[in-house]
Formats: sequence, C-alpha cells, structure tokens
Amino acid sequence: MNLSKQVQIKEVGPRDGLQNEKKEIATEDKIEWINRMSESGLSYIEITSFVHPKWIPQLKDAVEVAKSIERKDGVTYAALVPNMKGLERAIEADVDEVSIFMSASESHNKNNINKSISETYPILREVVDEAKKAGKSVRGYVSTVFGCPYEGNVDEHQAIDVCDNLFNMGIDELSIGDTIGVANPVQVERVLSEFEKHFSKDKIALHFHDTRGMALANTVVALQLGYHIFDSALGGLGGCPYAKGASGNVATDDLAHMLQQMGLEQSIDLNKLQEAAQFIESKLDQPLPSKQMGISRRL
Amino acid sequence: MNLSKQVQIKEVGPRDGLQNEKKEIATEDKIEWINRMSESGLSYIEITSFVHPKWIPQLKDAVEVAKSIERKDGVTYAALVPNMKGLERAIEADVDEVSIFMSASESHNKNNINKSISETYPILREVVDEAKKAGKSVRGYVSTVFGCPYEGNVDEHQAIDVCDNLFNMGIDELSIGDTIGVANPVQVERVLSEFEKHFSKDKIALHFHDTRGMALANTVVALQLGYHIFDSALGGLGGCPYAKGASGNVATDDLAHMLQQMGLEQSIDLNKLQEAAQFIESKLDQPLPSKQMGISRRL
Repeated sequence: MNLSKQVQIKEVGPRDGLQNEKKEIATEDKIEWINRMSESGLSYIEITSFVHPKWIPQLKDAVEVAKSIERKDGVTYAALVPNMKGLERAIEADVDEVSIFMSASESHNKNNINKSISETYPILREVVDEAKKAGKSVRGYVSTVFGCPYEGNVDEHQAIDVCDNLFNMGIDELSIGDTIGVANPVQVERVLSEFEKHFSKDKIALHFHDTRGMALANTVVALQLGYHIFDSALGGLGGCPYAKGASGNVATDDLAHMLQQMGLEQSIDLNKLQEAAQFIESKLDQPLPSKQMGISRRL
Repeated sequence: MNLSKQVQIKEVGPRDGLQNEKKEIATEDKIEWINRMSESGLSYIEITSFVHPKWIPQLKDAVEVAKSIERKDGVTYAALVPNMKGLERAIEADVDEVSIFMSASESHNKNNINKSISETYPILREVVDEAKKAGKSVRGYVSTVFGCPYEGNVDEHQAIDVCDNLFNMGIDELSIGDTIGVANPVQVERVLSEFEKHFSKDKIALHFHDTRGMALANTVVALQLGYHIFDSALGGLGGCPYAKGASGNVATDDLAHMLQQMGLEQSIDLNKLQEAAQFIESKLDQPLPSKQMGISRRL
C-alpha cells in the first residue's frame, strides 16, 4: 500500500459530538476535556459552535469554553460559525480558525439553513471575508456529499461545484461529509477520484460518520488515494448505537489506533487519548460507542 | 476498484457466536434462528460444534440442532468437530461439511488444544481422512494468523507452513483467523500478498473479528487483492462491546450491507437477515452490537 505519511486527525467531538448528545455537559467539564485532548497530542480540535443557543443549547457556553481552555502550542483551536453574529463571538473569543458549513444537496441545505444553495453563497462569502480580515483561517464543511437524507444519491459534480464556489471565496480547506453515514468504499473511490481532478488533496478533509460501520473502510480507501486529513469525534461521541437519531461520527480513538497500527500516525498518545475519552464518558448517561472504549471497559 | 463479483459470506454465528455468549439459547430457538437465516439467502451456515459439553455447554444440543433444522437446497450446513468423537456425532447428524481447527502460533495452539503444532497434525489427519471417507468436505480454521494473545506477532511464513500442512491432508478450504481482532489493513495486505504466492484465493477464507473496528476495512483490502470468502456472525453475536472477554466476530448484517452497497452481493435479503438478527437478539440479555441492529432499534 502506497500511503501518505502525513496523516492528520481533526477532532470535532466538542462540536459535532456534543451537539448530537442530549445531555448538556457542564462548561468546566468541557474545558477539562478539551485540555486533556490537547495533552494527548491531537493537533486540531474544533472546540464549539457559535450558533444561537436556541438551536443548540448544549453549546451555549461557546465563548466561555473558548476563553477558558489552555491553548497548547501546535494545536489549532477551531469553532463553527453559522453567520456574522457567530463570527463576531468567535473573533472575540480568539479561536484560531473558523468553520462555515453548507450542503451539497439542495433539500438538505434548505432544511438545515433555510436557504437555497445559491442564496447561501453570498452569506458565507461575507463571513469568509470578515474572518480573513480578522486574520483567521477558514474551513468549510460540505454536508451530504456521499448521500442526502431527502434526495438519496448526490451527484459528485454537484458537490464539486459547491466546493469550487467555496474555494473561490478563499476558504483554506473543505471537509466533505458523509453526513448520514451511507458512503461505501466503492463510492468513496469514485467520488474522490473525481475530486482529485479539481482540488489538491492537501485541502480536502474526509468527514465520515460510522452509522453503518463503513467509516474505517472508507478511510482506508481515501488513504490509498492519497487523502490524509480526517475528521473524527473522540469515543464516537454523538453516535451512541442505542440513542435515537444518533449521527455517528467515526471515533477518534478507533481511527488513531488503526492509523498507528498502519504506521501512519505517531504523534498521538493513545493512553492519554483514552483517558480523555473516559473522562467525558463519565459525564454522560451512557457508554461511548467506540471499540477502544469497549475494550477499556472490559480490562 | 477491481473486485471479484463472487463474494460469499459464511455464517458462523450459531457456532462461533453462541460459544462466546454466556446465555444458553433454547434448542428450539437455535433451530428457528438457523431456519430463518436459511430463508434469508445465506448459502453457508456453521450450525454448531460437536465439542464435549464440558467445554462449551452452550452447544450441548449439537445433534438435536443438526437433526431438526430444515435443510434448504443450496445452503451448506457445517459444524465444527474437535476430534474423532465429534466427527462421529457430526456424521450421525449428517452435516454437509465439517470444520477442524488449530492455531498458527505454538502457544495459542497449546493453550487451546493442549498439544504442540506438530502433535496436532496426526490427530487432525485422522479426522480429515475419516470425514472424507464419509463423503464430507472439510474446512479448516487456522487461528492467530494475524496475531496471538500470548506471542504477539505471528510470522506469516509460519502461518503458511501450517496451512500447507493442512491442505496436504486434503482439506478443501482454510479460514485464516484474526482471532483477537488486531489485524490492520497494511498487515492484511502484506500477509495476503504472501499467501497468494502459495494458495488459491478460492480456497482461503478470511475470518475477521471486529474487536478494534477494523474488520470491514480489512475486508476491503482482502477484496482488493481478490479474496472473496468471508466469515461473519449475524448481529456481531459473541462480540457485544459491553461484555467482558467478547471476541467480536464481524457482523454478518454489516458485512452483507457493505458488500451489497459495493455491488458485490445480491443473493441475501437484508430485511430477512435483520429479522433473523432481531429474533436471536430477543433471546439474549443484551442488544447485539452490529451497526445495522443499532439502526433498526432507532427506527
């Protein structure tokens, strides 16, 4: 296997994980958790979302979290911003990078943002421009690239068109998402082979959900094609198999373990990572779904 | 991806799954479950083990199960036999195929069979000879090919040597096992690339455990190399993430779903398969760990 040695994991648990957990975690526990993850060797943590608390009450303490965590050298602390108001708060809280988001499919975009795809661009452009003026790098999430809950299949050329428009705004990196966890390895190979005709692999991250158990298989196929940036959530947070409507981010601990076994990742301390997972699990009402956590409970 | 279209799943849940579940399932429920799996389109089911009840009391009803299930045309019904006594019972119960087993590593073989590898061969040879005389095809399980709980790494040439000896006895197919679920995709590629220098891919099955979540990723790598026979247990039976010492067979429902999505499997009715999984889950004390079962519980 001819694989890139420059693999990077981007931890999205404090945002994508917690926003899908019913239970609200105390602010001090979030801070402690993020600090522990910083100490584990992770180099990128999306710490929160500056979304209105009406939509995601679990993340209403975004400013306090961002201001109170210990910033470790070499770690990028990012946060999601849905609009200009969110961006203002993110800049005030001095995160390193902001993330914006939209969908590759019309109906998911409409359901999620209440706007058509073409109506979404100017709003995002304004946010990107302001973020850049404030010296922030910008990441974009493109949802439903591998399937849409309303439309089913999503044409990869439509996804590429959305990505093209986002890169043209000056966005630094796009994370393309298998939002509902339906991507399979053959499809991932087809879609990514098309993507590589248009974009640098250094600027495309893969955001796999493990709803159907294919996330690590899809990761291997992406690695074989030379992609090397992967999003995940510690412990599989937000995706407990026994919770209704769970979205199921691939688990950082399972991903990091596999990458280390494959000889592709050396910077993460898996024991510290597991301790950080155990810490947040102790604040939840149910066990985390990752395999590594399953093993640690059996020991 | 250049993949074989002749993929076959071999269901080992009634043997490898149930022997790792604490709870004893009623004989009539096992029979009903196996009949339901036959109806789902599975073409191979290992229905039990003719091992002494002292060792695996969960399977003490082996003869009754084998004699009472409905045999469906086109389905191979197999059973594990540890020795001549087991073979006699298997022949009496008229299974289609018998499986024997040993390990690729000395210490696991010693712990499991209480004999050295070289002491094991003549015993197995006698079983194979008798089975062949009775007109049965013979399958062999080779454990710890991808790692041993006592020795760690297992040299692939040692595993190949064991396989060579077993094939020389006239065994029809060998299932090489990642007994403790440690195989990673890079290792699978290395080991299988070595195996293909010695053996036909039509005679080597992969027996992955999903203890660390890598089973489907390993499956994809094996598929890419042209391997096309895979063992699994419905629902991930025997591998509940919350049970101590769980071995974690990859789940048939997750495997079949992925293979169908990849365009490689058409004969299994996933709905019937899921109903069969729900049936056996209803007889257990805890939910089955497969992703497909997680989804079905959320619907």
